[in-house]
Order: sequence, then C-alpha cells, then structure tokens
Amino acid sequence: MARSVLLTGAGGRVGQAILRDLGEAHDWRLLDREPLPRGKLPDGIDNSDVYVSDVTNKQAVKEAVRGCEVIIHLAGDPRPNAPWESVLRNNIDGTQTVLEAAVEVGVEKVAFASSNHAVGFYEDERKPDLYRDHDEFRLDGTELPRPTNLYGVSKATGETLARYYHDEHDLSVVCVRIGNLTESHPPRNYERGQAMWLSYTDCAHLFDCCVKADYGYEIVYGISDNDRKYYDIEPTRRVLGYEPRDNSAEYHLDGTPKDEFDE
Amino acid sequence: MARSVLLTGAGGRVGQAILRDLGEAHDWRLLDREPLPRGKLPDGIDNSDVYVSDVTNKQAVKEAVRGCEVIIHLAGDPRPNAPWESVLRNNIDGTQTVLEAAVEVGVEKVAFASSNHAVGFYEDERKPDLYRDHDEFRLDGTELPRPTNLYGVSKATGETLARYYHDEHDLSVVCVRIGNLTESHPPRNYERGQAMWLSYTDCAHLFDCCVKADYGYEIVYGISDNDRKYYDIEPTRRVLGYEPRDNSAEYHLDGTPKDEFDE
Repeated sequence: MARSVLLTGAGGRVGQAILRDLGEAHDWRLLDREPLPRGKLPDGIDNSDVYVSDVTNKQAVKEAVRGCEVIIHLAGDPRPNAPWESVLRNNIDGTQTVLEAAVEVGVEKVAFASSNHAVGFYEDERKPDLYRDHDEFRLDGTELPRPTNLYGVSKATGETLARYYHDEHDLSVVCVRIGNLTESHPPRNYERGQAMWLSYTDCAHLFDCCVKADYGYEIVYGISDNDRKYYDIEPTRRVLGYEPRDNSAEYHLDGTPKDEFDE
Repeated sequence: MARSVLLTGAGGRVGQAILRDLGEAHDWRLLDREPLPRGKLPDGIDNSDVYVSDVTNKQAVKEAVRGCEVIIHLAGDPRPNAPWESVLRNNIDGTQTVLEAAVEVGVEKVAFASSNHAVGFYEDERKPDLYRDHDEFRLDGTELPRPTNLYGVSKATGETLARYYHDEHDLSVVCVRIGNLTESHPPRNYERGQAMWLSYTDCAHLFDCCVKADYGYEIVYGISDNDRKYYDIEPTRRVLGYEPRDNSAEYHLDGTPKDEFDE
C-alpha cells in the first residue's frame, strides 16, 4: 500500500537509490538543501511536494512533515571526515529538528539513516580477519557506540535522540546503520567495503520495509547478504521483513561479476 | 600526590562538593561562566588560576587546560528540563570543546560528569520496586542509553564523544553517571532519590579517585552505597578504587538520621 512519505536528503546517494526503485511505490515528499534537478526527481512528482530547505529550519521542516505518515530521514553531512561544527548542526541539531517535528505533527514512524561509522572501532582488534567469510564475529545493534570519527558520533547521537523520542513520545523509529552503498557492483579491492556492501536494490527494498513494517524502537544493520559480513542482519530480517538479494561474494575482489555463482 | 587539575563548572553543586573536601588536595584551576565569589573558592587559590569563560569558547578553554594533568569536566546546563538549544550548545558542544582541547594540549585524563538521566527510562518497567532493598535489578554502565529528557541525551552524547576521543586519541576518560547529590542528608520522602543518593563526602572521594586512578575508557555510576541502589557500583570500586562511606538507609524516609544504624 502506498504511504505518504517524506524523504529528507532526497538528492543524496541513499535517497537516489530509494527513489530509483520506489519512485512510484509511495506518495513522496522530498526535502533537500539544494534544488533537485529533474533527473533526481521521480516521474510525475508535483512541484509542491519538493521542499528546498536546511534540515535545521524548524518551520520549513514542520511544513514538510505535516500530513506525512512516515519520514525517511537521511539529510545531514555525509562525509566521514566532516568537521565537528557541520555534524553538530546538520546531523545532530538537524535530526532533533526532524524528530521534534514528527512528534508535534503526529507522524507515525521514522526511519533514521545511521551509519557503520557509529561502531567502527569494534573492528580494530579483529581486522582484517573480521572482513572474511570464516570469521564468526557479529555486531548486532545491542553494542554501545564506538565511533571512528565525529560523523559517527553524530549518528550515534541521532540514535540516542530517537530512543528518547520513542520512549517519551511513543514515536516509532528504526535506526538503520547503513553499510557501504554502491551501485551495480561492490566496492573494488576493498574487503571492508565488500563486507558491508549495500546494493542499490537492497537499499530501496530495505527502506520500503521501514515504511511498511511495524516496530517500536530498533537499531538494525543495513547491508546486503554478503558472505563476508560482520554485521548481523537477522534482526533486520526479523524486525522489518528484510529479504536481501545481493551478496558481494557474487563479484570478484576487483568488482567484476563472477560468471557463475552458486551458493 | 597532588595533581594539577582543571575543574570546569567549579561553581556548581558537584564542583562545590569536590572543593569542600579536596580544596587543598590538588593544585586547582577553576573555570566557570560566572565569576566565583570568595566563598566558592578554595583557600589560597591564586586569581590567575580562576577562568571566567563559556565552556564553548575554544581559545579560553585551551588556555585553561594548558599545563593541567587532569580535567574534571562538570560544566554544562544542569537542568533536567533544559531546552534543546541550551544542552546542544553548553553540554554537547561544550564537552567536545573540552575533549578536543585535552587532546591538543596533551592532558592525561578526563573525568566527565554524566548523569542518571542518560538511562532514566530503564526504570519505567520496574518502579517503584526498583527503588527498594529487595529488588536485585542493576544497571552497570554496559547498557545502551535511554534518556528521560534532552539533558540526558546530551550527557549520553558526551559519553560517546569521550569514547571517540579515547579510541582515536588515546585519551583516558571516565564517565561518571552521577546520582542525586545532596548535602548532609538524602533527598526527603523520595525513594528514587534515596536509591541514587550521592553524599557530598562520597562525591568528593569519588572524583579524587578519578584524578588518581589509571583507566582507559569507563562508564561508572556515582552513588553512595545505598541499600536501595539499582546502579551497580562494583565497577566504580574496581576501576577507581571507590570506597563509599554513606548509605541512605542510615536515614529515615524524611531525611532525619536513624539513631543507631547497624549494617
């Protein structure tokens, strides 16, 4: 069933992966800080459903949120090396602005784009074994954050904000720790990226699940079903009904597809 | 052994509890956003060791930090109902400013005043049993934050920032989730407050331990040894050598001391 969904940060990579496959699946409102060129808009979207605003602008965000059933909140500075001032404003303050507006306006649920960078330091002691098929270590979302950078701190803070808005205001929120999103093939010659690959197809499907599923508060990992994975995606399957189709093991290390791939 | 210690938020309640007992134990530098009246200063402190500055002022904080071995970072908006704008600035940005300065200047360790409000929502399902002697439930610092307010979100964020500065920059940090600090007797007719009471004496001793002990990164609870407790203080004992002397069970519910108290 098509839902009324606000997508913040619609012009970014995750937003575009979602719109590529789901452009006609939901009634979209799009928000981005930059005007979106026609090529980044789903076919047939009405101009009045496209908002150009900073995500920290309370009034503009509230207007964009009003009447929506679900928010997919992606907006923020996506650079792992972004300076503190930028993530403080765009990622931390911006996420509070969106969650506050969601509660005020009475939105049903929010999917929040968190990141693998919120927990990157767990890898230090086990890499590179961690990135290989035989290693059984898994992170599952119950672990405390160990961010690798201030961007990761900002994403962990978004998760904590979401926890508060759920506990205090009964807002349903799923935080998706997104892996390494690339189109058409996994990252090349980069074991870590292949371990946490998220294909465009699986990304769109995953956020479609976030729109449709029922949940209270959850932290899940958003990656394809990679043999190399060290993030547990059983909770993602269980909570959201996620059924990934891709696996970086179907590609050689250099990114070319294997001719035949039998699991 | 006396250490050179910067105390931020020196004029607040926790700062004053520390200085009451430890005024002569260390070489203090004090920072507060307000000028400190003589009654709030330890005897014999030099004027040049007192800094009046906002904790988000990078330059002023760096000057105050330079030459110190340890920081006790208490500064921030202490109101549980503080608005987002204030905790974003004073507590989140302020803590990043202090940790960044600590790393730049080469400080050895930081004790960060976190709060019970970072985990307040764990109580909902078990209260009021949780606050009574017979209840065995304990939080121990390994649990994910569940803040009761935006102030609690800001304190959980300080813990995550500290984790990052430890992992990335090898700064030693202990985050102390402070209970309910009152002088001379536990909170009156308030079971929750008595469960998490921290006496002035135990508070000063606890932060003295933070100055002296060796640690990497830790989250511990800072309360007296109350019979009613639902915070585990074994980690506080083990990590810091904390030996609390007070217990709210030595007082009646109305705050008057029991004539005889035998454990």
